[in-house]
Amino acid sequence: MTIEEFLQLSAGKWFSHRTSHDLALKKSKSGKSDVIVEILPVDHPDVVKLCQQHQIEPGRASCGARVSWNGTVEADATKHTGSTVLVTVPDQNKSNEGQLLQEIVYTEETPFTGRYKIGSDDVLTLTTESENVWAEERLWFASPNLRMRASTLKRSGGFTQASFTSEIRMGGSQAAAPASQAAKSV
Amino acid sequence: MTIEEFLQLSAGKWFSHRTSHDLALKKSKSGKSDVIVEILPVDHPDVVKLCQQHQIEPGRASCGARVSWNGTVEADATKHTGSTVLVTVPDQNKSNEGQLLQEIVYTEETPFTGRYKIGSDDVLTLTTESENVWAEERLWFASPNLRMRASTLKRSGGFTQASFTSEIRMGGSQAAAPASQAAKSV
Repeated sequence: MTIEEFLQLSAGKWFSHRTSHDLALKKSKSGKSDVIVEILPVDHPDVVKLCQQHQIEPGRASCGARVSWNGTVEADATKHTGSTVLVTVPDQNKSNEGQLLQEIVYTEETPFTGRYKIGSDDVLTLTTESENVWAEERLWFASPNLRMRASTLKRSGGFTQASFTSEIRMGGSQAAAPASQAAKSV
Repeated sequence: MTIEEFLQLSAGKWFSHRTSHDLALKKSKSGKSDVIVEILPVDHPDVVKLCQQHQIEPGRASCGARVSWNGTVEADATKHTGSTVLVTVPDQNKSNEGQLLQEIVYTEETPFTGRYKIGSDDVLTLTTESENVWAEERLWFASPNLRMRASTLKRSGGFTQASFTSEIRMGGSQAAAPASQAAKSV
């Protein structure tokens, strides 16, 4: 699978169920979100703008996506909503890995660039690194309508958190399967 | 990484934190276990016996392991304990995949053989299939002292469960890092 195929398959609306394990306290916390993934053409103004912010020639972008979410964390009824734009920029001479540009969501964040790589087993690995935090996420499709994600977070003292997410495609999917089949064949 | 290296790195005592997501009910359940993984030489009587039960020439086994666990599920104080023996039998002409033999733990189970495969990203994928259940598990090391596992379970009606496990190496490890360093460098 290519990164473009992976993102195309991710397009649509998902019910996302996330559990994080605090590795020091040995406690878990769960959250649920609706997540919408929209594919953006590589000449979309948001894709071009993000490339320019990262001082990358927009023509090198291979795919763009907007990810929006709306959810809650455990008993807290506060809605967490937001969206971000992602752009993939393949390495020259390598088809299965490259840079992952991400829009700055919170103004206090410094802009960062991650890396993506797709393995021979169709597992997508994303790594991001900032001054104090290193994160790795692995994503794959158990089926076209069930996406799995698992990530680890490392700070200067070592790994602090593991997070796991199962995502079930909801109606109105952009995948090959009609929405009416999606619920049955999760 | 080879399957033998993966199992060698798995040897030792782990604190295992597992969360399962019920995909229909959208509920999660957590459990915690101590898990011990011991490597068995390929001429160990339990390895030879398991090969014979599966009608496989014992000389084809590349690695054996005994996995023991002792844990609880959420508020239920009942201890769940058990152990099983695993044996890897590489395919001829393929170094990164093969059969995974597993000891029968519960007498009502029919014996089954799974498959293992290690991807270019060092993710180990295990698949097992019986009459009504199909399971896939992916395992990898975030570090030598933090192992991640994610599995999906499919029954005749479709996917029913996603399970996620983070495993932290405890003292007395067989890995290169001394036990005293293991806790710090999770």
